[in-house]
Amino acid sequence: MPAQPSHNPPAPGPDALRSDARENRERILRAAREAYAIQGIDVPISAIARRAGVGVATLYRRFPTRASLITEAFAEQLAECAGALDTALKDPDPWRGFCTVFRKVCAMQAADRGFTHAFLTRFPGESEYAEKRDRAADGLALLVRRAKEAGALRPDFDASDVVLALLANSGVVNGAGPEAAAASSRLVGYLLESFREAGAVRPLPPPAALELDRLHGPPG
Amino acid sequence: MPAQPSHNPPAPGPDALRSDARENRERILRAAREAYAIQGIDVPISAIARRAGVGVATLYRRFPTRASLITEAFAEQLAECAGALDTALKDPDPWRGFCTVFRKVCAMQAADRGFTHAFLTRFPGESEYAEKRDRAADGLALLVRRAKEAGALRPDFDASDVVLALLANSGVVNGAGPEAAAASSRLVGYLLESFREAGAVRPLPPPAALELDRLHGPPG
Repeated sequence: MPAQPSHNPPAPGPDALRSDARENRERILRAAREAYAIQGIDVPISAIARRAGVGVATLYRRFPTRASLITEAFAEQLAECAGALDTALKDPDPWRGFCTVFRKVCAMQAADRGFTHAFLTRFPGESEYAEKRDRAADGLALLVRRAKEAGALRPDFDASDVVLALLANSGVVNGAGPEAAAASSRLVGYLLESFREAGAVRPLPPPAALELDRLHGPPG
Repeated sequence: MPAQPSHNPPAPGPDALRSDARENRERILRAAREAYAIQGIDVPISAIARRAGVGVATLYRRFPTRASLITEAFAEQLAECAGALDTALKDPDPWRGFCTVFRKVCAMQAADRGFTHAFLTRFPGESEYAEKRDRAADGLALLVRRAKEAGALRPDFDASDVVLALLANSGVVNGAGPEAAAASSRLVGYLLESFREAGAVRPLPPPAALELDRLHGPPG
């Protein structure tokens, strides 16, 4: 380690401690995001501590519950979702707004498999997270209503169909290996076609290179 | 155990041994199907042996490779798929034939999550299984071509979209808990809507009870 600049006290003072704590916190959150992205949110706390290079006790000091770690790790993505929803609600074309949000959330899911799981999980006691999540759900419901009123979204579209689509997309993202992004984008194209009130057929994203044989290696 | 009928020899002869072997074999296959249905085909051989109440050595004597166990366990379902395809190919309405097969395979996937994984896996050396599987793939390709020629299936439908749909369905089946069957049937309804050449909108299966909060319990 390089020597500290001379304006720092010889022994670590409150500022240095706070900066250490902040650094640890960031390291833990980064490790958690990486681990969730690969393994989903069920990854053990000990594995996250190991990845962050801190002890389990240190991790628990910063994040007393698993829920507090998960919600903090995904706070930025939840804010991104909320932002996309706000933009979509301002779009004069409700169907275009709906499609934009749907594509955005599915792409976030394709990029980070932990996110949707976190988004679909209720964390008791995490009221700030729950509030943001509820606000996102309300925004989505409003977007759905407006797209239906505009005659663009089929009238029998149900709020639960968003969850259905996210689950379907998670199956594609988890199973399609290197084709995950292309496959997810193709699925989203199909789903938007089927959600749409009858009209002209629009072109789909190109098919993903999914062959019967290429999805899973042979069992070991 | 009841006494053997008197025409059997007093000490276990070849027939009794063969019957023991057959019983073991059936027990192992049953245990394998149960384990695959719950955990998918990646479940360890030792867990299957334990579930069947036989030693790992006995299991390996009957099924020398994991692939031989997996392909034998799903032989019946593969035959069922092949039968559904044959029936569909005889249907004078190619679109109805396509829908019937698609619904059937997705329902089998909803009932047994190991099956599709097995169906999507290539097992080197299992030539009989591979042949049946190739025949099923050929039948499906023919069905797709006929449905397109009839102007019922959209022309940009790609063979890989069947795999895409199976992956999407697996995400729904694995994530929707007790709502798996209802959710899968709703997804299949949407996908068939989007695969169809533009026309009249048809009613969907009812929505599954999927709420943002009800999919996953809070982390422990």
